Amino acid sequence: MNYKDNYNPIISDEELFDAIVKEKEDIGYYNLALQDLSAYKEYAQEVKQRNIVVIGIGGSTLGTYAIYKFLKHTKKLSKKLFFLETTDPIDIQSKIEGIDLEDTLFIVISKSGTTVETISIFKYINSLVLCNSENTLVITEDDSKLNSYAKSNSMKTFTIPKNVGGRFSVFSAVGLLPLAIVGIAIDDIVGGIKKAHDSFFSQEKTYKNLMKKARFFVEYKNKFNINVVFSYSSRLEGFNKWYIQLWGESLGKVDFNLTRQGLTPIGIIGPIDQHSFLQLVIEGKRDKTLTVIKVNNFENDLKIPAVELKGLEELNYLDNREFSSLINMQADATIEAINNEKDIPCDVITIDSVCESSIAKLMYEYELLTSICAKFMYINAYDQPGVESGKIILKSKLK
Amino acid sequence: MNYKDNYNPIISDEELFDAIVKEKEDIGYYNLALQDLSAYKEYAQEVKQRNIVVIGIGGSTLGTYAIYKFLKHTKKLSKKLFFLETTDPIDIQSKIEGIDLEDTLFIVISKSGTTVETISIFKYINSLVLCNSENTLVITEDDSKLNSYAKSNSMKTFTIPKNVGGRFSVFSAVGLLPLAIVGIAIDDIVGGIKKAHDSFFSQEKTYKNLMKKARFFVEYKNKFNINVVFSYSSRLEGFNKWYIQLWGESLGKVDFNLTRQGLTPIGIIGPIDQHSFLQLVIEGKRDKTLTVIKVNNFENDLKIPAVELKGLEELNYLDNREFSSLINMQADATIEAINNEKDIPCDVITIDSVCESSIAKLMYEYELLTSICAKFMYINAYDQPGVESGKIILKSKLK
Repeated sequence: MNYKDNYNPIISDEELFDAIVKEKEDIGYYNLALQDLSAYKEYAQEVKQRNIVVIGIGGSTLGTYAIYKFLKHTKKLSKKLFFLETTDPIDIQSKIEGIDLEDTLFIVISKSGTTVETISIFKYINSLVLCNSENTLVITEDDSKLNSYAKSNSMKTFTIPKNVGGRFSVFSAVGLLPLAIVGIAIDDIVGGIKKAHDSFFSQEKTYKNLMKKARFFVEYKNKFNINVVFSYSSRLEGFNKWYIQLWGESLGKVDFNLTRQGLTPIGIIGPIDQHSFLQLVIEGKRDKTLTVIKVNNFENDLKIPAVELKGLEELNYLDNREFSSLINMQADATIEAINNEKDIPCDVITIDSVCESSIAKLMYEYELLTSICAKFMYINAYDQPGVESGKIILKSKLK
Repeated sequence: MNYKDNYNPIISDEELFDAIVKEKEDIGYYNLALQDLSAYKEYAQEVKQRNIVVIGIGGSTLGTYAIYKFLKHTKKLSKKLFFLETTDPIDIQSKIEGIDLEDTLFIVISKSGTTVETISIFKYINSLVLCNSENTLVITEDDSKLNSYAKSNSMKTFTIPKNVGGRFSVFSAVGLLPLAIVGIAIDDIVGGIKKAHDSFFSQEKTYKNLMKKARFFVEYKNKFNINVVFSYSSRLEGFNKWYIQLWGESLGKVDFNLTRQGLTPIGIIGPIDQHSFLQLVIEGKRDKTLTVIKVNNFENDLKIPAVELKGLEELNYLDNREFSSLINMQADATIEAINNEKDIPCDVITIDSVCESSIAKLMYEYELLTSICAKFMYINAYDQPGVESGKIILKSKLK
């Protein structure tokens, strides 16, 4: 008699780290922390148009939107950024109505170059305005048909490296170029991810935090199959959406034992959604981990004024308090309510301020966390076979 | 020796229906299908201001936003509706910057009348513009302190009935009044919910669909603890948010056996999120039910034009297709990909068109579904003790 098994062996932190270091040779996003930005900055300075319209979907837009949404009201940006990313006709029309297309740079982004939604919208744009080398920029893979199209029309192109997946591409040209064009400091963005990169790969704070968190998430994945991000700033709405894509598409996979894996991401905006979702967290089934994200310094002194409202004097304790202090107290009250329950796993991430470096570091650390969880789960974080089946069906319906 | 138990007995459909009919005597939202709208319409006609700003949070805004977002680009609305609902200072400032406050009606909505966030924002507004009977309307409970404040300042008030909970209040003054003011046909809204009401209480189609769905959701709640709504229209983004509140806060409860219950809601926008979330659905753990929502008729003929893009000819099969047909094909492709898996529970709701009646009927049916699930689960859908704990902690921090 002979017996062998292929069950998942338990992997040590050091073995996992070594696997990540090895993976870094093949998977491109890790090294975007070390890139040269001069070509992006040079191009960005030349753009004359005041409106920048990104045509793309999923990984081609979500990360850029996350950073733009986080920063747009605190920076004095020279240009406006728009995203055409859905096939909903009413959405396309209503967005375009508000844009002066003659004063617009169109950035067509598609990794494969043949994304149905992106090309459909781009065709529509072509019927409204002449797209040419003056007003159209293309970001795609070097050998895609979209790149050939762009070159044969003398349009400027930037490439997405083959080994940088769509949902991990925000710190490539996909995100950095549109952001640089509207006036966001991409040096600071890459500075932020460099900090996370160095701290992780020198096995310091970032490494320790992420390894602990990933190990917990994976070891308790069957009990806590849902991960909730509670963001205490409306600025983080785009981050939430990006996180949901990154997490869902990277970790929803069949592992090497043909067992279905998957941690389900939920992103909510604390000060609004705590009024409902907290009920589910506190009294509902214990099937969720929670991550609360706070902004340490909003750099904003907007206050609740000491206005007397007759009959509502019991709320005068709010007077003269800054809204930024109120929102952080809401976060702290939520954390305390959760901790009082004793059995709800919760971690708190406090980012420094509403700046480029903070949001970039947060996002890069989430990319690292995703990669580590995938390694612990013995799955490939970088493919998406389950999405392809839907795409194939759609194409056969369309043809 | 004696033995008794209080385990959940199995409840038959008829018993459950009788319990709902009985509950209808006490729980007010059911009967909003039967209300008289003349007072709302009369008030709405008198409003002169062009900007309508709702100050509220959670149940005071989410339902109104859902309907407004669904309809705003297809109706010729006479006024603009804004929502101040978060304590994020940057959000408050950036929203207010774009509004002419001198030409604004402020609608302050708080069921309890002492919601910290709402009163904080209202105080701030009071420091920018004189709030008086000309420009301020209050919607609250009859005996709240906010109502006393309004009356002592001669402000017009409408009341929220005690037996209509915040998250079930969209078809009361809370939602209907702001919607009527901006020009949405509230007769058609109530017409839509009346249809659902009648069909349910005469035990016809709505009754049969909802009972079957609720029974499935509850009987398989431990296997499928996540319910995903896949909305195939960007217009339904607000609906998704409203659904998440309704479902999470109503069904995340401890039952009469002190067992934690809870079904976790997720709302995604199909044409965008299918590119990521579908991966998790297809290859990830089988812990989700799916509801796909389609719009049958977008009443929009926006087409993908037959523009020749050199090098991209392989995508010419898109030419002359309407976007509304493309988005519905995307939905159908997703449904087919899911059905090919054989073991992912999925239902499809097709609403008629982008009109008042369709969205209202959809929302009212979701309210009914929530009530039925709660009855099957032996929980109270209408309280929220788990949210209160956080509120108490916040107040003690603030004082």
